Amino acid sequence: MMRSIWLAAAVAALTLPVFATAEDQPPPKAKTMADVLAASQPSDWRALDPENTLYIDLAAGRVVLELAPAFAPLHAANIGTLVRQHYFDGLAILRVQDNFVTQWGDPDGDKPDKAHPLGKASKTLAPEFERAIDKDLAFTPLPDGDVYAPEVGFSNGLPAARDPKSGKAWLAHCYGMVGAGRDVAVDSGPGSELYVVIGHAPRQLDRNIALVGRVVQGMELLSALPRGTGALGFYEKPEQRVPIRTVRMAADVPAAERTNLEVLRTDTPTFAALVESRRNRRDDWYKVPAGKIDLCNVPIPVRAIGADAKK
Amino acid sequence: MMRSIWLAAAVAALTLPVFATAEDQPPPKAKTMADVLAASQPSDWRALDPENTLYIDLAAGRVVLELAPAFAPLHAANIGTLVRQHYFDGLAILRVQDNFVTQWGDPDGDKPDKAHPLGKASKTLAPEFERAIDKDLAFTPLPDGDVYAPEVGFSNGLPAARDPKSGKAWLAHCYGMVGAGRDVAVDSGPGSELYVVIGHAPRQLDRNIALVGRVVQGMELLSALPRGTGALGFYEKPEQRVPIRTVRMAADVPAAERTNLEVLRTDTPTFAALVESRRNRRDDWYKVPAGKIDLCNVPIPVRAIGADAKK
Repeated sequence: MMRSIWLAAAVAALTLPVFATAEDQPPPKAKTMADVLAASQPSDWRALDPENTLYIDLAAGRVVLELAPAFAPLHAANIGTLVRQHYFDGLAILRVQDNFVTQWGDPDGDKPDKAHPLGKASKTLAPEFERAIDKDLAFTPLPDGDVYAPEVGFSNGLPAARDPKSGKAWLAHCYGMVGAGRDVAVDSGPGSELYVVIGHAPRQLDRNIALVGRVVQGMELLSALPRGTGALGFYEKPEQRVPIRTVRMAADVPAAERTNLEVLRTDTPTFAALVESRRNRRDDWYKVPAGKIDLCNVPIPVRAIGADAKK
Repeated sequence: MMRSIWLAAAVAALTLPVFATAEDQPPPKAKTMADVLAASQPSDWRALDPENTLYIDLAAGRVVLELAPAFAPLHAANIGTLVRQHYFDGLAILRVQDNFVTQWGDPDGDKPDKAHPLGKASKTLAPEFERAIDKDLAFTPLPDGDVYAPEVGFSNGLPAARDPKSGKAWLAHCYGMVGAGRDVAVDSGPGSELYVVIGHAPRQLDRNIALVGRVVQGMELLSALPRGTGALGFYEKPEQRVPIRTVRMAADVPAAERTNLEVLRTDTPTFAALVESRRNRRDDWYKVPAGKIDLCNVPIPVRAIGADAKK
């Protein structure tokens, strides 16, 4: 009965541009996200940079992670060094804490005699928890405020916040964002252990840890894993861990094996129209458009291109 | 290395009351959540009402759902009628959409000749999307604002919002909240098909659909399921669905088989102290306490009592 239709607005492809005779008189130009994407131009999209994209290959499939050198250049470079040393190959997902994070790295990372060597990568890194607001920082603000930060918006496709008073900007812990786990010392997270947000945005972590990128495809391979039953969601038995086959830089993968994706640019009128389509849903299911949107509820569309678009 | 300590603050039981020599001078009385819970009194907790609590028994375990009759009395009663007719026994989880919802009900609900009969339960229900603000409505406001609503806080242990101008209050779509799926018609969701939020709070649904309760235990049994690959996350093959063994009212379950839980009251100084402990984390991992908290990031502690406390 209701299952085939309710919440249909959640999937852009199924969202029809039908307007209810709403009392609040939606403007005639109001568009759904599907309309916005259908009208997008090639220049509204950007391809992922192969030198800035990781493929995490699990038995169940591939996770595609875009790094964020604009906010964490040292971490992005150190992770790249680790990847090119094949550091992550054969390591595992160690922890899945419900409504919080999935985390992967070296199961023996805390045993000095057994830990996999970091090789040429740094063992410590300066904390990249925030950066300066300057002319090099792209920033498309959102209009509806935020509980945690003075301003929020998007910077090159990543959810971000900034504080004009302090002159600082930082990435925000939204669903799918990836960070570098650390110990108590602020420089103790070199990127050898990574986590991804799989629940409601834990924004209290913002500015306390380095976010290093975002999962742009394959989130379900990390979010639907069994939750660990140990403290903090760590798997208690080694056999519960999920093995990582390989982590490779996209640039190092033969062209035929790459996952070719484009991400919608966040500094365009098309993205602004998409945000508006999500602030006020205009299909006939929604009776009370929110009129607002919070940072972590804004989707950042990704699409396959080339041969991948036909798969 | 870092994995054993980082984010330790996320688990109250592991959070030590150690203060860093922070530059921002934490007040000497600042407490962690673990401190707050350790100092709680029996009167800070309330037992679940067996006439208001559902057990959803799956092969993997039990989900405990507390209904919300203060906001959705017709839905709570209709769901109770369905449960006592054994309506849900043998039905299934039909849909898991990543970062959105898990949904269950009758796989044949949209086929008039095959649908399981609703019996004495209503097939339509007046929309209980909001209710009046009045003297019967408990409300403990939060101090940090909200993107979507003029005021947010807690009402009898449930995340809620209210608008003094309209005189209305409503439940909020936070992680773990359960709603009654509906079709386009606002009265088309009688509670025979239910969903639970498994991702970042989809607050745009607030006031558009009836929230009927909250999962207080067993969320991981609903959140860690494989995502459906059909439109809206529906499972495409019948064998992918997750069978529901039984759904029972706790009051109808023999005492020895009940799951005995208490929930922290949200109208007490203890809860206010808990909120403060989460607004400003005071362990030595956090370097920049957020100083704020958003509605859906406030935990509502649950504990086992009686024989269950020893399991």
